Amino acid sequence: MQDPIITLTTDFGEDSPYVAAMKGVLLSINPGARIVDLTHLIPPQDIWHAAFFLTEAIPFFPAQALHVVVVDPGVGTSRAILYVEAGHHRLLVPDNGAITLLARKYGVRVARRITEARFWRADVSATFHGRDIFAPVAGYLGMGLDPAELGPSVNHWLELEIPAPTTEGDNLHGTALFIDHFGNLLTNLPLARLPKQPLRLQLRGDSGGLPLERSVRVVRSYGEAATGELIALASSGGWWEFAIVNGSAAQELGVRRGDPIIARLAPKSPG
Amino acid sequence: MQDPIITLTTDFGEDSPYVAAMKGVLLSINPGARIVDLTHLIPPQDIWHAAFFLTEAIPFFPAQALHVVVVDPGVGTSRAILYVEAGHHRLLVPDNGAITLLARKYGVRVARRITEARFWRADVSATFHGRDIFAPVAGYLGMGLDPAELGPSVNHWLELEIPAPTTEGDNLHGTALFIDHFGNLLTNLPLARLPKQPLRLQLRGDSGGLPLERSVRVVRSYGEAATGELIALASSGGWWEFAIVNGSAAQELGVRRGDPIIARLAPKSPG
Amino acid sequence: MQDPIITLTTDFGEDSPYVAAMKGVLLSINPGARIVDLTHLIPPQDIWHAAFFLTEAIPFFPAQALHVVVVDPGVGTSRAILYVEAGHHRLLVPDNGAITLLARKYGVRVARRITEARFWRADVSATFHGRDIFAPVAGYLGMGLDPAELGPSVNHWLELEIPAPTTEGDNLHGTALFIDHFGNLLTNLPLARLPKQPLRLQLRGDSGGLPLERSVRVVRSYGEAATGELIALASSGGWWEFAIVNGSAAQELGVRRGDPIIARLAPKSPG
Repeated sequence: MQDPIITLTTDFGEDSPYVAAMKGVLLSINPGARIVDLTHLIPPQDIWHAAFFLTEAIPFFPAQALHVVVVDPGVGTSRAILYVEAGHHRLLVPDNGAITLLARKYGVRVARRITEARFWRADVSATFHGRDIFAPVAGYLGMGLDPAELGPSVNHWLELEIPAPTTEGDNLHGTALFIDHFGNLLTNLPLARLPKQPLRLQLRGDSGGLPLERSVRVVRSYGEAATGELIALASSGGWWEFAIVNGSAAQELGVRRGDPIIARLAPKSPG
Repeated sequence: MQDPIITLTTDFGEDSPYVAAMKGVLLSINPGARIVDLTHLIPPQDIWHAAFFLTEAIPFFPAQALHVVVVDPGVGTSRAILYVEAGHHRLLVPDNGAITLLARKYGVRVARRITEARFWRADVSATFHGRDIFAPVAGYLGMGLDPAELGPSVNHWLELEIPAPTTEGDNLHGTALFIDHFGNLLTNLPLARLPKQPLRLQLRGDSGGLPLERSVRVVRSYGEAATGELIALASSGGWWEFAIVNGSAAQELGVRRGDPIIARLAPKSPG
Repeated sequence: MQDPIITLTTDFGEDSPYVAAMKGVLLSINPGARIVDLTHLIPPQDIWHAAFFLTEAIPFFPAQALHVVVVDPGVGTSRAILYVEAGHHRLLVPDNGAITLLARKYGVRVARRITEARFWRADVSATFHGRDIFAPVAGYLGMGLDPAELGPSVNHWLELEIPAPTTEGDNLHGTALFIDHFGNLLTNLPLARLPKQPLRLQLRGDSGGLPLERSVRVVRSYGEAATGELIALASSGGWWEFAIVNGSAAQELGVRRGDPIIARLAPKSPG
């Protein structure tokens, strides 16, 4: 049997010893595990960010991988830890909504609450379940443990509220789901409705003031646009994205994650 | 034989080619080595930080791992490089005190000075022993080389001066050992003396002025406290920790690493 | 056969899901691949930096490694992707000059343009060839695919213009090739001409004003110099380096990458 691939996604940062401690526990139980770092720079306790990161990364992994996700503001409370199969992708995650986008994309085939303490470290701390529960459970799963041993099947798990996009004639109403580190806006506007011709983008700032309207050119790649130009394109992850070439769309348009976005498909002349 | 696990802890940063060069040398000698990054973000030349990081991370690894530590302000001087077994944990470290806390926790079973240049790169630079000595020696150790081949046994190694905590009645005198990136203070106060009831914390700033006194509530996890509250708890690494929820205890209390900390166990009413 | 070593060097940052997606694609094709992160912190689209990073890191790897380099400002344009053997080092790189220094050091034995789309992901995006072309091609190469299958041999590839150093008597004329994160200047001055005695360093700032002259002491390692002293030494990578101990030579001397550097070997008394 191939050595198991176990990936790690956390908000621990890269300077802390916590990631290292998790790796140590994992390798102590499962010395053959091949650990793959996905990121340790999820913004602290940012579940929405984690949900988005996972849906951009996990789909590309093979089925045999196990994905351990420790973005866990509820550590030490009664929040559950789940073993989830979203399609054929296997995850260990806190039950806090981090699987929302994967669950919607693939459906949840299996969900179990991790309750069997015999697979945990003997002394479980109140503040570090990544080391004391997630890592050892991942180690045993990697050795072939049947997930049914971990705890009971559950029919319910938390999901983040993400408003579904709606349509009013040629006006598409969506949400800014994610702002990447270039300031690009990834939205839940339906990609099938991304036009080829220019469109109008309408934004309502958080201040509740008058909406801002901007013309947007639709392109296939950044290379087709000039510096400073506001463009719309299909992101590599399959999202309808707004970007300003060599600039930050989020900053320039004053958009924050969760803000509403309205795209008007019938263009009128700018001005 | 399982492929060897070789971990890397350095202060090289993650943008430099130095970590990559070490990995290349290691894999050239020992192509089967499974390299595990612990961190490359030890603050430059900060031996105390390295000592603390190691004692939070290394204990969780299995005995077969070899831990390579390159936080080495003395590179190019006559400082020794050591092979150390602290309990069953095996390390390659500069002789500069980085093993202090592991040595105190586990005792040093074996210490050898790395002197046998036949296991080094042919041209040893004056500035990069990580690549030229640590990496190749780690490669050979991972292939089963007897550490006795590396150089002579030594009975002496550097340790950092960490004042032992003392007790005066209900007053515990300790030291702020470490300030983590949330600003939490990890101290050497004896965990066995952490009370269940509130206590008084007394701090003497670096300025030598009047000591500051603060009430501290003792909790099991951050989740039990309100934002801004000063709490004491047992850290996940087994230290007596002071924290301010969603704040920086270090900044708010003006405490720096190495500062004295006095905990008064007999509580009096705050104010 | 040993599982293949596949290294990754990108400018994606460590917080993005793009590195994770590449690892997923790679492991889906080649589940046994041993992925080694070199860095993901090449400054965005900085080809010169990438070229320098590679020449400091790649030479230390064994021949069986495959090096995947995605610093690719031309993604989505007609720039080629190349399979290159520089000496015995094997790389997948955009044809943008990133291999310049390796090519000059080792010579290019093999160069092929990656054109055979049957080794790519089915849907190649316009913005993420790292995931859609580089990663799957690396996966197949790691499984033993003959590079001749990837596309036609080419005789031409882009190289960055790096002026060759010249000599006028005792005056050596070179270029600041790289400024590392300590502010040290790595230059292309010929190391064979690095003297043992002090020298004069002449710099002409970007402003085109009067050249600046400074005395420089030649040392073997930083440890030999006092804080603030300007020194010249052989860098661990074999470059003629200028440094200020515990300071930034680049900042203090006002030198930027690409600036000319003149070293006068016949010392005159300072002042």
